[in-house]
Amino acid sequence: MSDLKVTIPGVARSDEGGAGVLAARTRGSVHVIGSGLLGASVGLGLRARGVEVTLEDLSPTTVALAADYGAGRLRGADDPEPALVVVATPPDVTADVIERALAAYPSAVVTDVASVKLAPYLELRRRGVDLTHYVGSHPMAGRERGGAFMARADLFTARPWIICRDEATPAEALALVEAVALDLGGVLLEMTPEEHDRSVGLVSHLPQVVSSLLAARLVPAAEQAIELAGGGLRDTTRIAASDPELWVQILGANREPVVELLDAFAADLGAFAEALRDPARPGAKRRIADLLAAGNRGVSRIPGKHGSSERFATITVFVDDRPGELARLLTELGELGINMEDLRLEHSPGAQIGFAEIAVLPEVAERAVADLVERGWRTL
Amino acid sequence: MSDLKVTIPGVARSDEGGAGVLAARTRGSVHVIGSGLLGASVGLGLRARGVEVTLEDLSPTTVALAADYGAGRLRGADDPEPALVVVATPPDVTADVIERALAAYPSAVVTDVASVKLAPYLELRRRGVDLTHYVGSHPMAGRERGGAFMARADLFTARPWIICRDEATPAEALALVEAVALDLGGVLLEMTPEEHDRSVGLVSHLPQVVSSLLAARLVPAAEQAIELAGGGLRDTTRIAASDPELWVQILGANREPVVELLDAFAADLGAFAEALRDPARPGAKRRIADLLAAGNRGVSRIPGKHGSSERFATITVFVDDRPGELARLLTELGELGINMEDLRLEHSPGAQIGFAEIAVLPEVAERAVADLVERGWRTL
Repeated sequence: MSDLKVTIPGVARSDEGGAGVLAARTRGSVHVIGSGLLGASVGLGLRARGVEVTLEDLSPTTVALAADYGAGRLRGADDPEPALVVVATPPDVTADVIERALAAYPSAVVTDVASVKLAPYLELRRRGVDLTHYVGSHPMAGRERGGAFMARADLFTARPWIICRDEATPAEALALVEAVALDLGGVLLEMTPEEHDRSVGLVSHLPQVVSSLLAARLVPAAEQAIELAGGGLRDTTRIAASDPELWVQILGANREPVVELLDAFAADLGAFAEALRDPARPGAKRRIADLLAAGNRGVSRIPGKHGSSERFATITVFVDDRPGELARLLTELGELGINMEDLRLEHSPGAQIGFAEIAVLPEVAERAVADLVERGWRTL
Repeated sequence: MSDLKVTIPGVARSDEGGAGVLAARTRGSVHVIGSGLLGASVGLGLRARGVEVTLEDLSPTTVALAADYGAGRLRGADDPEPALVVVATPPDVTADVIERALAAYPSAVVTDVASVKLAPYLELRRRGVDLTHYVGSHPMAGRERGGAFMARADLFTARPWIICRDEATPAEALALVEAVALDLGGVLLEMTPEEHDRSVGLVSHLPQVVSSLLAARLVPAAEQAIELAGGGLRDTTRIAASDPELWVQILGANREPVVELLDAFAADLGAFAEALRDPARPGAKRRIADLLAAGNRGVSRIPGKHGSSERFATITVFVDDRPGELARLLTELGELGINMEDLRLEHSPGAQIGFAEIAVLPEVAERAVADLVERGWRTL
């Protein structure tokens, strides 16, 4: 279904072979600039794989905290030049820090983990910085709260990790960054900075803005309206809980694609509202139906656990709100030999019962329902 | 947290006492007009509770199918007048069918299950129809696909069921509709038609339009962009899979509140895009941050399983993609005495591993992580 270069990682525990290879490749030393969630997680992950990590941060408190958590040690004046520098600073200073790192460590490969790739790259080119030793990267990992105290060695496991090189990037530099990304558990994809920024604009930045603005509409709402909230509202607004300060920077750094996407979305919204406002106009109902049907087609393109979500059937099982009921259901599914491809829980406030929506292969759905009903479960 | 009249249902199985009472109250007979998903589910649910149900539908095929599924029998010429008529037709003909039912069965109580309440009510008032015996209602239940063949007696279990009466509604009429809603497992809420339509506009119709338009933006997208889709995009676009034909009717019937909400949302979107387009303007960054922060506040108002989601801490556990792993995790959580308040699964395409995000009470989160790690689970 895709011609991208996707590498499926093993579940990277501290396996001696891999760790030894990476340690040798990095000549035993990676320097991480910026000790927040991502920088400290890179440090923890690499140290777990036998790599020596040094740390640096504008804030003495932050870097001391990351060191305390085991992400690495402060860099000393006598330390040899690292093989790799990972820039993990906020997006608005990424270009400056990359330039400084390339100058300070002229034989090192420099990468960054910023969630936008074009603006820093263009800024560095504009300044005439030699980017031969720079390889951009973006691990799509994060948590709702930032900071070194949230860092984990496993943060990147099974997450897409995008690599942006250009035609001048030497094979060894690319291989080193890829080795680190793979060893930290990432799923590699290669893109140009433009492709990256447009892509994350569409699949991450636009949904973030839309979700935040939708949730913002709930602020002045009556309590009785909020009481009617169902799974649809909960799903559409979940990411509205994200950190505003971080997102101001991300959106600012990916301004042009995001503004373009917001304008296109606003045009669709305007067309929809116009058609709804004046239903007597010829074609108004058709226009509304067309936009809703396009939504059907769009959502069917999103890959699920093992590819397209169209591949699965959903069975809904009632689960009493008692400890252990869901575990019992899943255990019985296992006993029945039914493989669960995905699971969603849904509850209504005030109700004593919930629903488990279980995705299974279509060919087993009917038997699964029959077997569950025979065992006393109620299905919808 | 609310002063609404909420009644928490027991888990309504066919309990003899309740069924007998309802059968007596309805004098043994409910007539359901419209044999789609909701009408057939009402029929199945009432028949399971010992109530005689007759059916009617414009389409002979549809009504025969519903009867075959056990939702009731076709109404005969000699049948006595029913105690209750449930109108379960598409929203655009609801008012007509209610008027006809009130005329045909002058001593019956008439209710409907349409997802909009004001337009049919105003239309009936405009026509001068005596609404003494009419009580509007809206069970917030549905499935991704409609039709009698998807109907279930349990469809309404634990779902909000809104009742709209007016000052002229006799207590007995209200009590009858409430008894049916409760017996079918619904969670009762009382609202005026205006409150209902504004409320569902905000928590259901606006999110539907926004989600559909967001998903529609994916139609022309490059495959490599879609490959980067994460949980955020999946969540925000899930309901975009809904039936366009049904939604054309729902949105058309709730036109004014939805247009108003879309206009307000479009204004927020425009303000956001403007601030992003011209970041040098004084206050632009502040404006973006304010809108994102309002999203934080809005999402925190949505009730979760047992009230506000702010009440819970989330722990993230890595789960290998092997049958039985999740069941084992939930079983061990039970053994550890840790009560799971909610559960979400997340997967990356191409990865051999997933994440289970488990909501627990904050005071047990730390111990839960420690206990799970001790048993060999990896947490994020």
